[in-house]
Amino acid sequence: MTEPGFELLKEDAGTKARLGRIATPHGEIRTPAFMPVGTQGTVKGLLPETVRELGADIILGNTYHLYLRPGHELIRRLGGLHRFMNWPGPILTDSGGFQVFSLGALRKITEEGVAFQSHIDGSPYSLTPESAVAIQEALGSDIMMCLDECTPYPVTVREARVSMERTNRWARRSLSARTNRMQMLFAIVQGGMYPDLRRQALEELAALDFEGYALGGVSVGEPKDMMEEIVSRTAPLLPRDKPRYLMGVGTPADIVRSVSAGIDLFDCVLPTRCARNGLLFTNTQKVVIKHARWREDEFPLDETCDCYTCRNYSRAYLRHLYMAREILAMVLNTIHNVRFYLRLMERIREEIRQENYSVWQREFLDRWEDGPAGDTGEKTDIPE
Amino acid sequence: MTEPGFELLKEDAGTKARLGRIATPHGEIRTPAFMPVGTQGTVKGLLPETVRELGADIILGNTYHLYLRPGHELIRRLGGLHRFMNWPGPILTDSGGFQVFSLGALRKITEEGVAFQSHIDGSPYSLTPESAVAIQEALGSDIMMCLDECTPYPVTVREARVSMERTNRWARRSLSARTNRMQMLFAIVQGGMYPDLRRQALEELAALDFEGYALGGVSVGEPKDMMEEIVSRTAPLLPRDKPRYLMGVGTPADIVRSVSAGIDLFDCVLPTRCARNGLLFTNTQKVVIKHARWREDEFPLDETCDCYTCRNYSRAYLRHLYMAREILAMVLNTIHNVRFYLRLMERIREEIRQENYSVWQREFLDRWEDGPAGDTGEKTDIPE
Repeated sequence: MTEPGFELLKEDAGTKARLGRIATPHGEIRTPAFMPVGTQGTVKGLLPETVRELGADIILGNTYHLYLRPGHELIRRLGGLHRFMNWPGPILTDSGGFQVFSLGALRKITEEGVAFQSHIDGSPYSLTPESAVAIQEALGSDIMMCLDECTPYPVTVREARVSMERTNRWARRSLSARTNRMQMLFAIVQGGMYPDLRRQALEELAALDFEGYALGGVSVGEPKDMMEEIVSRTAPLLPRDKPRYLMGVGTPADIVRSVSAGIDLFDCVLPTRCARNGLLFTNTQKVVIKHARWREDEFPLDETCDCYTCRNYSRAYLRHLYMAREILAMVLNTIHNVRFYLRLMERIREEIRQENYSVWQREFLDRWEDGPAGDTGEKTDIPE
Repeated sequence: MTEPGFELLKEDAGTKARLGRIATPHGEIRTPAFMPVGTQGTVKGLLPETVRELGADIILGNTYHLYLRPGHELIRRLGGLHRFMNWPGPILTDSGGFQVFSLGALRKITEEGVAFQSHIDGSPYSLTPESAVAIQEALGSDIMMCLDECTPYPVTVREARVSMERTNRWARRSLSARTNRMQMLFAIVQGGMYPDLRRQALEELAALDFEGYALGGVSVGEPKDMMEEIVSRTAPLLPRDKPRYLMGVGTPADIVRSVSAGIDLFDCVLPTRCARNGLLFTNTQKVVIKHARWREDEFPLDETCDCYTCRNYSRAYLRHLYMAREILAMVLNTIHNVRFYLRLMERIREEIRQENYSVWQREFLDRWEDGPAGDTGEKTDIPE
């Protein structure tokens, strides 16, 4: 089994973008990387072989969902999450914290951890820094995340400090609880929208022996420019020799900008969730497939796209499937959107390799904001 | 383009089973054949490449559904149904009659044809023998069906006669309306559960120049033994040198028995609809995947099955996906059930080829009725 580790291959001259490689026991991750989200042990609508063919090196699994159903002990007994879901590549699991904090009134936080009720049947559960690590060890993921308290927006500086300091105490406990060195453990930097708190959080965590660092508590409702500022100020301060992960982000433009701040890893439900809701990404426009304008359109979604959907189907057919609520609508749309994201990551890596990231980024963002982003205001709050 | 035609390769000595080959412009159909149902221009949950890999030579499309949405003229303009849905193989389209007659109060039959309201939005439509052919010519299917009046069960002999005679008049009109000889046209034998009416219907239709013959109005609620009797008495009277199609049938046991009566073609929603509802076929049992007994089951659905699902996933994982209402549950279950049916057809053809159909059929039915059929009473009325 390959020892886990990170190799920094190149740093961009004009920006802070980095090209790298994360080794895991289940294979290599080329960074910057986007992780398709496989919440419940499946990337919704895709066979794992398809996920791989689309260019994914790694997927994300949700500890919260798998802990509740079917249960981490069951998955351990059946050989771990990789075998259970037939995905042989690397998996990152979150800690469950973000989902639990989203439960609002259904959860209660103490210094020990968080008690909550299942969204499925209301039954009581808890997560502590120690149990979150134990669950992720049972799942057997390649990258585990520390339980953190996801600071919402807006909060006072005082609330953000209390929350961040608890997150850092929990990170120390997570590190002590970990028993398997073959599974990397990443810490999460909180601190709300306060750069000084972010810096303090980061300095404390950087002094500890984590295999990677994440920025949490962004894309939680704050204005776009505030998120950009936090990422651009905080990311470059993260340890240079460790992977940097921006949790839950984002739109194509968010990713392109965050790469230039030095981020290596991304995950987001946007491509998969939009696909199921008939919102499709292309380089020139966002396509709302149910619109009558596509009714007789014989062209592929995106003539420049190499995905299976674009190679074989017309917009008219995709519209028909969507209007008829066919399963295949979700499958074909997901194939396209995931390929769009993974192709974007291929392009990003290539532009860094060619020492052209700065120029390419500017062109991309100009084009994107005049086109696809302008179309829909880059709404990310698509209903599930 | 290959001229359409039927070749009878072998007739079983002990039964009336036949081995054959239907040539179409889109490829060959090995008979006896099962046609997976692709109602709205997709076999629900499967990519067309997957349908082919599972062993399907031909699929069925529903004229009623495609006529209403997206419309046959749209499909014609986009190059026909094969191209629209990316299925390069043979397609049989029904006439829409069965679905229209299922509309009950929403439809009105006259000698001219049938007027009805769309189940989607209530808007008015009509089908005549001539328009049903024109629609199927626009779709470009390889095998078209005549518009028929599907006689329900029970009806009086007088009602069955009136209905059958109209169906036969409509068949003559369909034949006159057809303009493209590259698309085969099959007539449908009605006559309810009255063998003499069936014989009369059949003799009249056999005198006309159809490329194939179907038995309609079976599996419409009649007792199982009545259906068996009608099929076993009527099928052997159908023209020997033409394909024989039993519409909408059926369970594995129905298919095995009907093959021994001389049927060549089958279609049924059972494998696909059951799959979506978590009911899975195996040779030893019907598996209701949501049952708690499969919660931790590490074995494949069917260890003797060669399908992708059985090669890669445990019953525990399939149960998890089903309970979590994941799209992949429907996809993996459909792959298995369709493969089960198509593998059964491969076996049927092989047993006829080996001159062993009679012996094999007895063994199969004994085993099936002690096992899978006994489990669930072979209910076919699974909710959509």
